[in-house]
Amino acid sequence: MEALHNVQFRLASRPVGLPTDSNWQRISEPVRDLADGEVLVKTQYLSLDPAMRGWMNDAKSYIRPVAIGEVMRAGGIGEVVASKSPKFAVGDIVTGGLGVQSYWTGAADDRSAALAKIDTRLAPATVWTNTLGMPGMTAYFGLLEVGQPKAGETVVVSGAAGAVGQTVGQVAKQLGCRVVGIAGGKDKCDFVVNELGFDACIDYKAGDIRGGLKEHCPQGIDVYFDNVGGEILDTVLTRINMKARIVICGAISQYNNTTPVKGPANYLSLLVNRARMEGMVVFDYADRYHVAIAQLGTWLKEGKIKSREDVVEGIDQFPQALTMLFEGKNFGKLVLKVA
Amino acid sequence: MEALHNVQFRLASRPVGLPTDSNWQRISEPVRDLADGEVLVKTQYLSLDPAMRGWMNDAKSYIRPVAIGEVMRAGGIGEVVASKSPKFAVGDIVTGGLGVQSYWTGAADDRSAALAKIDTRLAPATVWTNTLGMPGMTAYFGLLEVGQPKAGETVVVSGAAGAVGQTVGQVAKQLGCRVVGIAGGKDKCDFVVNELGFDACIDYKAGDIRGGLKEHCPQGIDVYFDNVGGEILDTVLTRINMKARIVICGAISQYNNTTPVKGPANYLSLLVNRARMEGMVVFDYADRYHVAIAQLGTWLKEGKIKSREDVVEGIDQFPQALTMLFEGKNFGKLVLKVA
Repeated sequence: MEALHNVQFRLASRPVGLPTDSNWQRISEPVRDLADGEVLVKTQYLSLDPAMRGWMNDAKSYIRPVAIGEVMRAGGIGEVVASKSPKFAVGDIVTGGLGVQSYWTGAADDRSAALAKIDTRLAPATVWTNTLGMPGMTAYFGLLEVGQPKAGETVVVSGAAGAVGQTVGQVAKQLGCRVVGIAGGKDKCDFVVNELGFDACIDYKAGDIRGGLKEHCPQGIDVYFDNVGGEILDTVLTRINMKARIVICGAISQYNNTTPVKGPANYLSLLVNRARMEGMVVFDYADRYHVAIAQLGTWLKEGKIKSREDVVEGIDQFPQALTMLFEGKNFGKLVLKVA
Repeated sequence: MEALHNVQFRLASRPVGLPTDSNWQRISEPVRDLADGEVLVKTQYLSLDPAMRGWMNDAKSYIRPVAIGEVMRAGGIGEVVASKSPKFAVGDIVTGGLGVQSYWTGAADDRSAALAKIDTRLAPATVWTNTLGMPGMTAYFGLLEVGQPKAGETVVVSGAAGAVGQTVGQVAKQLGCRVVGIAGGKDKCDFVVNELGFDACIDYKAGDIRGGLKEHCPQGIDVYFDNVGGEILDTVLTRINMKARIVICGAISQYNNTTPVKGPANYLSLLVNRARMEGMVVFDYADRYHVAIAQLGTWLKEGKIKSREDVVEGIDQFPQALTMLFEGKNFGKLVLKVA
């Protein structure tokens, strides 16, 4: 058998602002032999997520930064193509922290990779990067555990056509809430309302977020699930109800700032409304992912919710694909098809 | 009997920035006769509070603004000097929304005044404006219900020598927490540590809040009770622990801004640390004030906590006294002695 070659994208330098090609080093090297207990996984799909931008900074956060010279961290789906572990057999489809590379080699029980078999009969592999993957888990636990919506309440979610936002809104609809999305552009808003079944969607690119919230949230806002931060968060704060819950999941508008993060100037609305703003990180719910997968998988099968992915082909498209996230160019969960 | 004259301070105009003399109209008018069900209360002490600045703005908040031409809203302690109500007898000492005036006239059951008898044998009248009044209630319920400190945790409170801060810290000590105050100036910090028994106090005027937090909160910060907002809130956010609770009680550093409020730029620390920031307004706990008064009154009697007031004499000192709050000149709860 010819030697397999592993194409990798390693972090070459830390970006200032939006990542550029010069931040990456593309390497092609032979795949090494397996030691006992190891497996070789051929990457099929990589999940591209806003959080990746944070991992590129040399800053204390909920996870250590990617080191210079290290393969870029990424979750993905792959096929076990060689195994010296009883844990996985050749042909198994797994999810895990494969990194931005075409092959992953390591111990079957490696904790940072956290490989786990998935059932592609329940849903296609791409859905396992989305509704049944980290974005879906983030949406499910962030909404239910932190947002705690009740039937009849109004839930607003930003990044509504994105990976996390689409599931937040659809789950909130299943719970009997009024759901209003915020997304960029008419096409995304049409999709969010017509395909995903949100009650309304506000196009932030059209400019009048405040007017949109006033029109579409006549009873005020009980839960705001924030993926974007910045001006949108600040505007939502002016329309929250008493005892509102704001879930801080991300702040994509701020990740490439070269100036300080814009703090929410209207945060004293929390005081006036006895409201709370609370952060969440999906990893905290790892021991209950199976619960969310079972529920979301059932709703998917029943056609009650949808999973929308935007697939870019070819590992060499990685640098360009990543920037799509920050320019709002992806339509649904952004996935890189590697093999 | 000679006609009694009531000296009032009415809101003449809305301030831009720090209130000035021109915002007030001083009026002296005869006290009117009582109708059936009414009482006449002679003001003894008025409570001067940072929240008063907010009531002067024409903005939607947790309470309606004071109208132009209306007597300035203020809580106080007074003596019932005439009564046509069975609810109060001449000689009763009451607490309530007396306003900045030397006499209050109105229905004994007036809801906005919310007159209630106090027992000055339990504590002197000034303490009823402080530890046993709104500041104490704010401290008690804000800390216990929103901050939810556990023994052994580290609690930080800003405005530590002020009305709310002093009780927050002392109650947290009673609960077995490590307590670190933030206050302005060496005298206040010495008082907070030596008289109130906090474990440490950081002098924000000396400049190095970050260094102080690092030194005095070696285990990080579990609960932050914020009375000030601005740079101090932002700095505390960099030192919070996982699952930390930030109680938003006030933001005195921002109340006289003529520029937009400074939002907490480090709010994404809430995400990294799965922490929450929650607002509170003391009125929500009115049906349980008696519980707090009983507990705080017991601790006061036992000498376990102290109540420190800074008394300014004379109703005509009201405009100057109010600005003392925003200049950090008061040392303890600021009280205006009227009669």
